[in-house]
Amino acid sequence: MTASPATLDRRQVEQMVRQVLRDRLGGASPTYHRAPTDNGGPNPLVVNVSARHVHVRPEDLEVLFGPGAKLTKLKDLYQDGEFATEQTVNIIGPRNRMIPNVRILGPARDYTQVELSYTDGVFLGIDLPLRISGNHEGTPGCILVGSHGALNLQRGVVRAERHVHMSPADLAHFNVADGDIMKLKIDGPCGLVFERVKVREHPKVKLEVHIDTDEGNACHLPSATSMQLIK
Amino acid sequence: MTASPATLDRRQVEQMVRQVLRDRLGGASPTYHRAPTDNGGPNPLVVNVSARHVHVRPEDLEVLFGPGAKLTKLKDLYQDGEFATEQTVNIIGPRNRMIPNVRILGPARDYTQVELSYTDGVFLGIDLPLRISGNHEGTPGCILVGSHGALNLQRGVVRAERHVHMSPADLAHFNVADGDIMKLKIDGPCGLVFERVKVREHPKVKLEVHIDTDEGNACHLPSATSMQLIK
Repeated sequence: MTASPATLDRRQVEQMVRQVLRDRLGGASPTYHRAPTDNGGPNPLVVNVSARHVHVRPEDLEVLFGPGAKLTKLKDLYQDGEFATEQTVNIIGPRNRMIPNVRILGPARDYTQVELSYTDGVFLGIDLPLRISGNHEGTPGCILVGSHGALNLQRGVVRAERHVHMSPADLAHFNVADGDIMKLKIDGPCGLVFERVKVREHPKVKLEVHIDTDEGNACHLPSATSMQLIK
Repeated sequence: MTASPATLDRRQVEQMVRQVLRDRLGGASPTYHRAPTDNGGPNPLVVNVSARHVHVRPEDLEVLFGPGAKLTKLKDLYQDGEFATEQTVNIIGPRNRMIPNVRILGPARDYTQVELSYTDGVFLGIDLPLRISGNHEGTPGCILVGSHGALNLQRGVVRAERHVHMSPADLAHFNVADGDIMKLKIDGPCGLVFERVKVREHPKVKLEVHIDTDEGNACHLPSATSMQLIK
């Protein structure tokens, strides 16, 4: 059964287009797998893979997408208030190679930051420093290209340090503090133990581990049979 | 001081050209990092990253590079008799994307096999099975393109299972047998423990762990401070 064109209003059309976009862009979204496991605590343990992505500050967004440009939501991420946007940029590095269609995550931040895997860094020719978000001292830059123009980003290109977001209840359950290092054990055919997972506290955050695509692929997260955070 | 052209024979010229090729092609060679560590045993422990590569059987080599084509050596690998060849192929998968310039390793084998990382598999659209070399039951194929023509490979595209090559002396030192599973602990800023490293015995092999680029990048092997094989 097909709906008659006459019964579709603008809102319905927009919803359909967004759904098609979501389906098609699934592989390019920052999160491609989620594997909950029981940790005995107050909240479920979720491990998410962050694919390469970009955060932007408002003035850089205008360079890339034109005066007055605002981030528009494509879909919500796991953390409340965080979202994948409809905007993507091309990343160009010193080897004159480009990674196209890298998604910007919202909302806008105070800084522009590009989070890549080491695999991406080798491809682009960028020696990525390992950093927690926002720590850009001594980090390299790159060229970002949006639909309006190019941005010569001076710094902010990093590999994100593995980390776990925890609320105060989670800290109490695992008996750890902000900045502590934990282990994450992934069982399965490509099982491994990540030894350095940094604890990051936020008052209202959901319990969530973030690893990058190299790490998610090394342990082949989709075939993981169980996962465990260990102090 | 520069040598006069008159003093260069064909052999010297060939050596110089090969050296330049080696230097330039370093990033595309199957091994980009080696980090020895003391394990107390009879042989040094070497961990090597196998970048994506291809093994070929003679009849497929002729399809790709023409009648009578033979593999020619670019440089020796760590294991005696194994070498990177001067031949490369392009790999095309179901998403109509291509990975160019993938090196063939010699000598020729009884089967053609393509070893990729999961990152490569996602890019190409191939759901890679995890296999030990030569086990191709139920594995997918791909298209390989050489300088002479294209090969419709029916099967043999895999992610290689992590493994460690051991001689009888190494087996005795670690007190393990062919087929056993060991752990590999990598210390450093991206430290982790690979939990499933399969032991593979050969009478005259050098002690060597093979992991792929996802795994080598997940632990950032270049910044590793120590490594240890654990039973």
